[in-house]
Parts: sequence; structure tokens; C-alpha cells
Amino acid sequence: MSDSVHKALWERLELDVEAHEALLAVLGKFYGDIYLSQEGRLQGAEYLDFVLSEVHGLRIQEIQDAKATGKKVVGTFCVFVPEELTLAAGAIHVGLCAGAKAGSEKAETILPRSTCDLIKSFVGFKLARLCPYIESCDLIVGETTCDGKKKAYEAFGASVDAMHVLEVPHCKMPSDRALFRSEVVRYKEALEKLTGNTITAAALHEATITVNAKRRALQRLARLRAADPAPISGRDALLVNQISFYDDPTRFTDKINVLCDEIETRIAKGEGVAKAGTPRLLLAGCPMAVPNWKLPYIVESSGAVIVGEESCIGERNTRDLVDVTKTDLDGLLDALTDRYMKIDCACFTPNTERLEHIAALARELKADGVIHYGLLFCQPYAHEAFKVGKAMTEAGVPYLSIETDYGMEDMGQLKTRVEAFVETLS
Amino acid sequence: MSDSVHKALWERLELDVEAHEALLAVLGKFYGDIYLSQEGRLQGAEYLDFVLSEVHGLRIQEIQDAKATGKKVVGTFCVFVPEELTLAAGAIHVGLCAGAKAGSEKAETILPRSTCDLIKSFVGFKLARLCPYIESCDLIVGETTCDGKKKAYEAFGASVDAMHVLEVPHCKMPSDRALFRSEVVRYKEALEKLTGNTITAAALHEATITVNAKRRALQRLARLRAADPAPISGRDALLVNQISFYDDPTRFTDKINVLCDEIETRIAKGEGVAKAGTPRLLLAGCPMAVPNWKLPYIVESSGAVIVGEESCIGERNTRDLVDVTKTDLDGLLDALTDRYMKIDCACFTPNTERLEHIAALARELKADGVIHYGLLFCQPYAHEAFKVGKAMTEAGVPYLSIETDYGMEDMGQLKTRVEAFVETLS
Repeated sequence: MSDSVHKALWERLELDVEAHEALLAVLGKFYGDIYLSQEGRLQGAEYLDFVLSEVHGLRIQEIQDAKATGKKVVGTFCVFVPEELTLAAGAIHVGLCAGAKAGSEKAETILPRSTCDLIKSFVGFKLARLCPYIESCDLIVGETTCDGKKKAYEAFGASVDAMHVLEVPHCKMPSDRALFRSEVVRYKEALEKLTGNTITAAALHEATITVNAKRRALQRLARLRAADPAPISGRDALLVNQISFYDDPTRFTDKINVLCDEIETRIAKGEGVAKAGTPRLLLAGCPMAVPNWKLPYIVESSGAVIVGEESCIGERNTRDLVDVTKTDLDGLLDALTDRYMKIDCACFTPNTERLEHIAALARELKADGVIHYGLLFCQPYAHEAFKVGKAMTEAGVPYLSIETDYGMEDMGQLKTRVEAFVETLS
Repeated sequence: MSDSVHKALWERLELDVEAHEALLAVLGKFYGDIYLSQEGRLQGAEYLDFVLSEVHGLRIQEIQDAKATGKKVVGTFCVFVPEELTLAAGAIHVGLCAGAKAGSEKAETILPRSTCDLIKSFVGFKLARLCPYIESCDLIVGETTCDGKKKAYEAFGASVDAMHVLEVPHCKMPSDRALFRSEVVRYKEALEKLTGNTITAAALHEATITVNAKRRALQRLARLRAADPAPISGRDALLVNQISFYDDPTRFTDKINVLCDEIETRIAKGEGVAKAGTPRLLLAGCPMAVPNWKLPYIVESSGAVIVGEESCIGERNTRDLVDVTKTDLDGLLDALTDRYMKIDCACFTPNTERLEHIAALARELKADGVIHYGLLFCQPYAHEAFKVGKAMTEAGVPYLSIETDYGMEDMGQLKTRVEAFVETLS
């Protein structure tokens, strides 16, 4: 990741080039230790390694080239922002960096200390000028999913050129659906204003098919992980989901389908990344943004394999497709609204469907246990951890709840807890 | 407060009588130290002392007597729940205890540790069976103002007989107003179901006039505090606002107007609770529920006097009246919706009106400085503390931001900080 062939690009984006290169060097080392050290990886992982190595390089160059032709770039932090609309407006849709402890000190000058590391991360990346994606954005879209983000966008918005905050309601009653429907329309209008393009029914229909295809590829990958031995590591599968937020959607879909072909071959041969019978774990909870690979690394170096991610960077983003049977604009906007209102985010109350989803997923993936991952100071998922624990106990599924942040100080303690948990499953 | 003449009553309510008596003994001592020790109190403070001494006694007896005649009791935790509707349904509306560290250990068995003390308090009061109000309730109404409360009600709801959660939106756009309008109607329907009474236009009009009168009395008190010397201590004024959530609204209004008459006489004589020229402070931020008197006590024993409370137990609850010019049901429900949607809670984004309100209030009350009070782990007000600080600095108003909880461990440290701040104002 630390190839300074892109230095001129980063200078043009007014990054803090020195700090940025130092960050890339650390991440490169981290990636080598966590990813490149794995045995029995798929050939298709070459795509993942390449994308990651060029995540701040070639992909940014590609985005800048598109900008030079008049394309606009929209940055987001949440799976509630309908990518279908962004693409239909002819813009590029990217998920923004929020997985590393960088710029935290600067972030704490405008955010409370009791803010989760994901929020501190994106604010820090901006204030410390470390993220070429943020600097490439023509519009940044926030949302009201949690208090931390909702209020952070007020301060963050002052440091970016254009900010749009999408309101996500608290419940799923008809009045909430109506509110979110109006928010979908308001986002559509913001995109039309930004790009100068009118979002037509045909363009939205096509974009919806594109995003559905991406989600289908991710669903295919998720289902293949039910095989024992596990055909892909949890780390690599998480990386696939992380990359789905950055790469061109059509290229990504093609690559992941090729990866899935390879996985099918591997399954047919009875091969995998770990021995058959290796304890299988489902991770549930907060999203793990690039390069937040700490817990997956701990789990998979403790004698277990991760077979699913019940999180926004995982199942929560891929479970539901948009109905494309209606092809008129109103029908498509209705279908988008309905699809996004199905998301089982902890921001909703009561959100009991999430408990059912986790139990079903654990069954489908033949998971031997569930680890709930909460980011320190993330209140919505911290509350749900209690509920998930109760539901898993009732379902007879072994359960471990972990709360941590982006720091490395608790690595040893976490490893001890995870190893002890894995031991009970063997 | 610790009169065991009411022991039979508490036993009937299935309180943990022993722990409850211990709690009352502590509170009685605390009240004596903080309230009864004050010099130059108003005669009308006798009402406050009496209500507080009987807050778990005679008032509960009165509520139980009303219940015996078929009245229903509704308990709430937030100023967004329209008292007008509760009264129009012929029910009693009470704010529930949330200001003491009691039952916290029990609360932490179902809540994350990074939950504010206000939430831990009401959950703890219930789980430890310490609050006769909660035990008297036929319906408890929560709301979605913050992540902590929204998610806590899911666990809390399982331990109470009937729970209704009112959805408060995140923004103030037309779609939010429509959502809250439907929530007002949903609450009305819940009350009608609970009480068996239909809420008529006439009943709602009358109830609205009753609640407006209560708010007018509190507004009158607030305005009188602009006088120098300050005619009433901040502690007593806070207590008035706290009691407004417990006592019968009509009796309360009468008593507070009598208190205001006395204050006017005092002002005419140039008398007050502190010398003219004593540094005057406005408290802004989180609500201080009974018996959370820690910070006011520290401030007023540090050479300053508090002249206003910009909080839910203060201005945020009393600033706006409901328009009663329309007398039909739809018109009244619209007026209620509009009034409640004016509340400048930190749950809204962007909520810039709050900054204007604080600046205006500081001017009106001739405050020499503003102290922002944040409850540890309250994310919405922690974020706003940064914004208030910036706005006060721009307005040239001295500003101090304090974050604390219900513990007494930081009393010394807080006193040092407050004294240093007050010194800069003298």
C-alpha cells in the first residue's frame, strides 16, 4: 500500500503526505501479518490483495480520472444510503474509511471522548488529511442511525464542502416508512442537484439491477461458507465485504463470482482453509471497516474459523435485494424504501427480527457459536448484545460478548478470552 | 421523607421496604444539608419542603386514592410526552424518579455500563423496587430521544406491566412533523384504551389550558430571576421545576403563583438570597431529576447564584405554550404537535435554535456565565457542549463545561473547577 508512485496524486488532494505514507506503511505491515501470512488462500484472493494494495492509489486515480470527465463522487458511512440512486445519477458511490485509529487526537478536539472509534476514525481521517476518498468527495452523506454519528456530522459537516444527512427513523411503523420514503426522494433530489442529471426510471432500474447483482454475489459467497471444511477464511470474506464499498460495483461483482466459482471447485474436492471439524464461529454486531481486522485475526489464530459476519459490512448489507418488477419511478422508489426499511440495524426499536436473523444464520452456516462484537461506546449494539446473548442461550448456541476498540492494548486479554471460548466448542 | 407512617402503603406496593427506608434516610439528610441549610429562603419554600417530605408518602397515598376511584396513572421520563392528553383522558401524569444512584448494580445486569446515570437510575429504581411512583403506574411511556433510553426501554419494558414508546424524530422537516403528529394520535389512542375514556375536544381544550397555566407560572418564576439580587436560589428554583413533574398540576400552579407574589414583594424591597453583584450563572444541558442537586449545591456554595436552568427540568419544558385558539380536536392535536416539535432537545439535528435560546436566556437573566452540565455517557449533550462553548465564546459569555454523574467521588474536583470559574467572574 505504501507505493509512493502516487505521491503526486496525494499532494494534489492535499493530504498530509508524510503522515499518510507512515499510515500506509503501518497498514502494509498489518496486512502482511494478518492476510498474506494465511495458508491455503484462494487464487481469487489475488484480486483482494491487489485492490487493497492500490486502495489509496490506482482506485483513487481511477476516481480522479472519472471526476475529470465530470463524474461526481459521493462518500457514505452507512448501509442506509441507497447506492442505487447514486449510480442512477451517474455518480460514484464509496464507503469512507473508518477502521483505523488515525487522527484520533484531532477528532477529540471536536468530539466527546466517549465516542466510538469508528466515528473518531472518520473525523480523524478528515481533520488529519489522511483519506484520499474523503478528499475526492463532492458530497458526503451522513445519517441519523445513532446519537454518536448524528451529532458528529454537525461538527464534521463544518469541515467538508457539502454534507447531506439522511434521516433514518427509530421504528418501522407506517409513519416511519412514509418518513423514509420522503428521505429517499430528498436524497434523489440532492443527487440531481449535485450531478445536474435527472434520475430517470430507466437509469434507476438499471442501477438497481447492478446493485442487486453485487448483493447476489455476496449472498452466493455467504452461502458457500456453510461448507465444512470452511472454503475461505473469515478474514478474506470480511475483506470481500469491505472492498464491496470501494471498488467499481460491476468489476467487483465479476471478481467475486469468479472467486465463488473457485470456492465451489474447492468444496467439491473437500478442501478448505482449516481442517473439517474446526470450531466455526459467527461474528455478530458492529461493522468492521477497513483495516479493522483485529478480532477476526484473534479468532482465526485461536483455533477457530469465522463462517459469517452478521454486521453492516456483511449480512446486514447483503441480505435483502430490491424488487425490480415495477419499472416506473414511483414503483422503484417504493421498492427501494421497502428494501432499506428491512435492515435490522440496532437503531430500530424493538428490532426483534435481528435476533431471528442471527439464530437462522447460525443454523444455516452450521456455526458452533456466536461472538458478539461491540465497539466501545456504541450504545445501540451494546444494548443488543444483552438481547442476543439471551436469545442464543435460549437457542442453545454458545455465546461470547466482546467489547473493544481500535487500540491494540487488549490483544492479549481478548486472545485469552477467545481461546477459552473456542476450547469449550472443540 | 423517612416517615414510616407510610410503611403499610409501601408494603402494599411491594417495595423493598427496608432498602427504601434506608434510601429515604439518606435523601432526608441530603435534603437537609442542601436545602434546609439555606439562608433567606422564601416562605413559599414551605410548600416545596412539604411536597418533598411527602413525595413518597402523602402524594403516593393521594395517587392510590385516585386509583381506587378508577383513575389511571401514567409515568413518563421525558418532556416530549404530552401531559395535556394524559389529563384529557382523566389520568394522572407523573415524571418518574431518575436522579439517584440506587439499584445501579441491578441496572447493570440488563444495561451497558456506558449508560448514563439517569437511565441506570430509573431501571435501578424498578429492579430494586424502590420507587412507589413506578409501582403505581398503569402505563409507562418511554420515547426515542436518545440511543440509551430508546434501547433501555426494550429491557425495562419487560419488567413493567404496560409500556408505550413514543417516537420522537431526529429532525424538524415536514415529514418529521407528520410522524410526530401520528405519534400524538397513537398516544391518544393508547390513553383511550387504558382509561376507557374518549378524549373529547372539550376535555383536551381544558387540559391544555391547565398545562399552559402550569407552564405560565414557571415562566413567571423564570422571568423574576432576572432581578439582582437574585430573589430565589437556583436550588429552590430547580426544586420547583422538579416538583412540577410530581404534584397535582392545579395545586402546583396555585402554589407557584403565590411564591411568585412573594418574590415580587421581595424584589420590590431589593431583597434576595445573595448580595447584589453575586456572580450569576446559567446552567445549561442535561436534566437534573430529583434528587440530583449535586452541581447546583456546588455552584451555590462556591460564591455564585444560579439564575436559570436551560434543561428539560427547566426552560426546555416551560418555554412554549400550546395554542388554544382552535377548539376542535384536530386543531388541538395540531397545536400540541407544533408545540412539542419546538422543543430544542439535543436529540434533534442540527438543533441550532438551542444555541440562540441559551444566548438569549443568558442576556435576559443577566447571567455572568454559563455552565454546561453533561451527564457522563450522554452523547447528545456531550456533542452540544462543544457547540454551546463555541457559541458562548463568540458571544463573549464566560463558559465552563462539566461532565459528571450521580457519584460523589468528584465533588472536590468539581468544586475546585467551579470556584476557579466563579473567581474569574467576580
